[in-house]
Amino acid sequence: MEDVWPRTEELGLFTDLYELSMMQAYWAERMDEPAVFSLFFRKLPPQRNFALACGQEFGARLAAGIRFPRPQLDALADTGHFQERFLAWLDDFRFSGDIHALPEGTPVFPHEPLLEVRAPIAEAQLLESFLMNYVNLETLLASKAVRVARAARGKPVLDFGMRRMHGSDAALRSVRAYRIAGIEGTSNVLGGLRYGLPLRGTMAHSFIQAHDDEIEAFRLYARLYPGTILLVDTYDTLVGVDRVIGLIRDEGLKVDGIRLDSGDLGALAMEARRRLDAAGCSSVKIVASGGLDEWKIRDLMSSGAPIDGFGVGTDMGAVSDAPTLDFAYKLTEYAGEPRLKNSPGKQLTPGPKQVWRYQDGEGLYTHDEITLRTEERDATPLLTPLIEQGKPVRDEPDIEDARLRASAALDAMPAALLELEPMDPPYPVSFSRKLAELREQALAALTA
Amino acid sequence: MEDVWPRTEELGLFTDLYELSMMQAYWAERMDEPAVFSLFFRKLPPQRNFALACGQEFGARLAAGIRFPRPQLDALADTGHFQERFLAWLDDFRFSGDIHALPEGTPVFPHEPLLEVRAPIAEAQLLESFLMNYVNLETLLASKAVRVARAARGKPVLDFGMRRMHGSDAALRSVRAYRIAGIEGTSNVLGGLRYGLPLRGTMAHSFIQAHDDEIEAFRLYARLYPGTILLVDTYDTLVGVDRVIGLIRDEGLKVDGIRLDSGDLGALAMEARRRLDAAGCSSVKIVASGGLDEWKIRDLMSSGAPIDGFGVGTDMGAVSDAPTLDFAYKLTEYAGEPRLKNSPGKQLTPGPKQVWRYQDGEGLYTHDEITLRTEERDATPLLTPLIEQGKPVRDEPDIEDARLRASAALDAMPAALLELEPMDPPYPVSFSRKLAELREQALAALTA
Repeated sequence: MEDVWPRTEELGLFTDLYELSMMQAYWAERMDEPAVFSLFFRKLPPQRNFALACGQEFGARLAAGIRFPRPQLDALADTGHFQERFLAWLDDFRFSGDIHALPEGTPVFPHEPLLEVRAPIAEAQLLESFLMNYVNLETLLASKAVRVARAARGKPVLDFGMRRMHGSDAALRSVRAYRIAGIEGTSNVLGGLRYGLPLRGTMAHSFIQAHDDEIEAFRLYARLYPGTILLVDTYDTLVGVDRVIGLIRDEGLKVDGIRLDSGDLGALAMEARRRLDAAGCSSVKIVASGGLDEWKIRDLMSSGAPIDGFGVGTDMGAVSDAPTLDFAYKLTEYAGEPRLKNSPGKQLTPGPKQVWRYQDGEGLYTHDEITLRTEERDATPLLTPLIEQGKPVRDEPDIEDARLRASAALDAMPAALLELEPMDPPYPVSFSRKLAELREQALAALTA
Repeated sequence: MEDVWPRTEELGLFTDLYELSMMQAYWAERMDEPAVFSLFFRKLPPQRNFALACGQEFGARLAAGIRFPRPQLDALADTGHFQERFLAWLDDFRFSGDIHALPEGTPVFPHEPLLEVRAPIAEAQLLESFLMNYVNLETLLASKAVRVARAARGKPVLDFGMRRMHGSDAALRSVRAYRIAGIEGTSNVLGGLRYGLPLRGTMAHSFIQAHDDEIEAFRLYARLYPGTILLVDTYDTLVGVDRVIGLIRDEGLKVDGIRLDSGDLGALAMEARRRLDAAGCSSVKIVASGGLDEWKIRDLMSSGAPIDGFGVGTDMGAVSDAPTLDFAYKLTEYAGEPRLKNSPGKQLTPGPKQVWRYQDGEGLYTHDEITLRTEERDATPLLTPLIEQGKPVRDEPDIEDARLRASAALDAMPAALLELEPMDPPYPVSFSRKLAELREQALAALTA
């Protein structure tokens, strides 16, 4: 059976046709001056205050390694769309340009580049579709997960979402994004092993159903897995709780927790806690799951529900409330000249840029400024060199570093940014005077 | 650089931890009686009238091939969660069961199984996470795309969405689902080549921007690609249209179409059509793109906008309006006994099932009935054997067959089902009397 997933050697074809068509046109015209492309989003979904930039460092490294091996060239030849000499040129293709990027785990706002590519235009053009697909996924997932994790106010959030994510790549790389965003465990075995997030899991209803008796199922599972978490809602949740209590008290079984997966989770947690405590089972934790998102978790926490951890799947995994980010990869300079477009609602600022994040005396973020790359400011520049002349100049991004970076950044953000509701006015991000002037000049040149 | 995508030999680990934990428990308890699991969804998103089942045939074949090679067993051993003798048992793991499935491209309604697995319980349990992730993606995408394709009333819809989809697996397999759903072309090179959907693409704004002059960019592109489609909205859409007309009329350039990507697409198409026709360019087509979905396309078509094709990306690719389907994979029988659960809002009907689709004298679908597998009806049974004793008994699913099947099925559905708004009352699906009785008996046994 053929593999259904893309292989690294196929990445050159994992692109939109027009990228290759434009490359061939640039090649045919001998247009090989450097171009600057910027990857950013124009606006946030209404209920988001920021995005958490993820995937851009690792994605850029993959992109810089794109090659066109013979079988891929043959496939392109078969389309009839490409000239033999162009395909020979692709045969030698190596990305030779520079990429600046935000470190993964950096909070990011509209119009701030997550990365900028500077390379001969055909090379920089090729990277568009792959980079957008790659960065979009992890940034979407991390930006959602950080809200869920924060809503739980320090209680652990576990990822149970692989079954509802959009395919295998989403299900795997989500775990990477989730670790950066502060999720504390995952049910996803391959994802957890690959990206170093602790594996967590309990039992499914089917295990209870397959036994003639719920008590017998609990007993067998807890004997095999001392300290397990038992799922109590297959038939009657509170009866299930009483059965767990009985097994602990009468048979000395080791059970670390119960999981509630349906019904009024707040009320059931309250009553389960009361029964557990009354029975001397105060150390048995309560984990809630079933249709949870950041708002439901916030409400449960606000109501004082005695829940010790959350398993979150569907809505975090599919980013149900905002499944797209408005990413763009836009040409801003060619052959040293600023470049614009003018389509309604899709304004662009020209030139290579830098993003500066200003902090007050206590280290709290106050505002950002987007400047031309050549400007200097007394603040932290966020875009730093990642690839130079086609070669990585930083180590492979470390997930734990990114997690710590995200965590520190969240602590330094204004409190209102971390709320689930939109901050009004939004976090201040301005363009520098020089950037605004360059835009005016470029616009004037367009209409001249 | 390591591959980031899952490899076929890793599929055994592409699962939720609890599946492996439950497998070990079944193994330890010597519970190896056959279990029946059913993959279905309980409800449709409010704006959907049906789903288009996709992915279940190919996904089931992949699932039936799951193995645990040595490196994967070593990884499991390292977790400390599994016994050596259980891992030795996994080393010999072969799926030995049966899978019945709907043919891909079949319209499906709530509670109708897309597939049923019958196998020793540990084997059937293992398949849950993988199958759900696999089938969820393609069914989601096809169910959205069929609405978009239908809204265009025979005008071709092209997939431009790879950059906004959730990762690479989504971006690739979407093309498979789209072909089945009636999408006519894709910009996605690897996806199109793999799944036989024609490659389509025009040019990006960057190509225009990189040239000092829009006319020069158009000229060069149309000379290199006679019959191309030119993107006219980089600066001023109607000026762009006039420039294309000039190049066709004055220089004899071959241009098959223009693409509008921003602004009031209906009004711009109308005016562009008027100018093209007045200039004798009636054969030049107008393609619209930019933030389109099924509702916008329907409105454009209803308004009489002279648009000859649609490029659709973001909202079709991320299934923005309904990015999850409420799939469940539930135990319905173990060791020949019906099995239920009773969690609030998550009712289940027991036993292996069949779905019958009734047609009237003209072949139009009138209603469906879900029965026990053993019942017979004078109608079309939708679930047919796919895997028997671990081996495929049908050929690998043919995408073109599935496309034709979907197309014929849509033609046979009540017209109201194909509307974008919910059909009220919904398409009638009933449970057979025997199934209802079995459910009552099983419920009574639970509470006895």
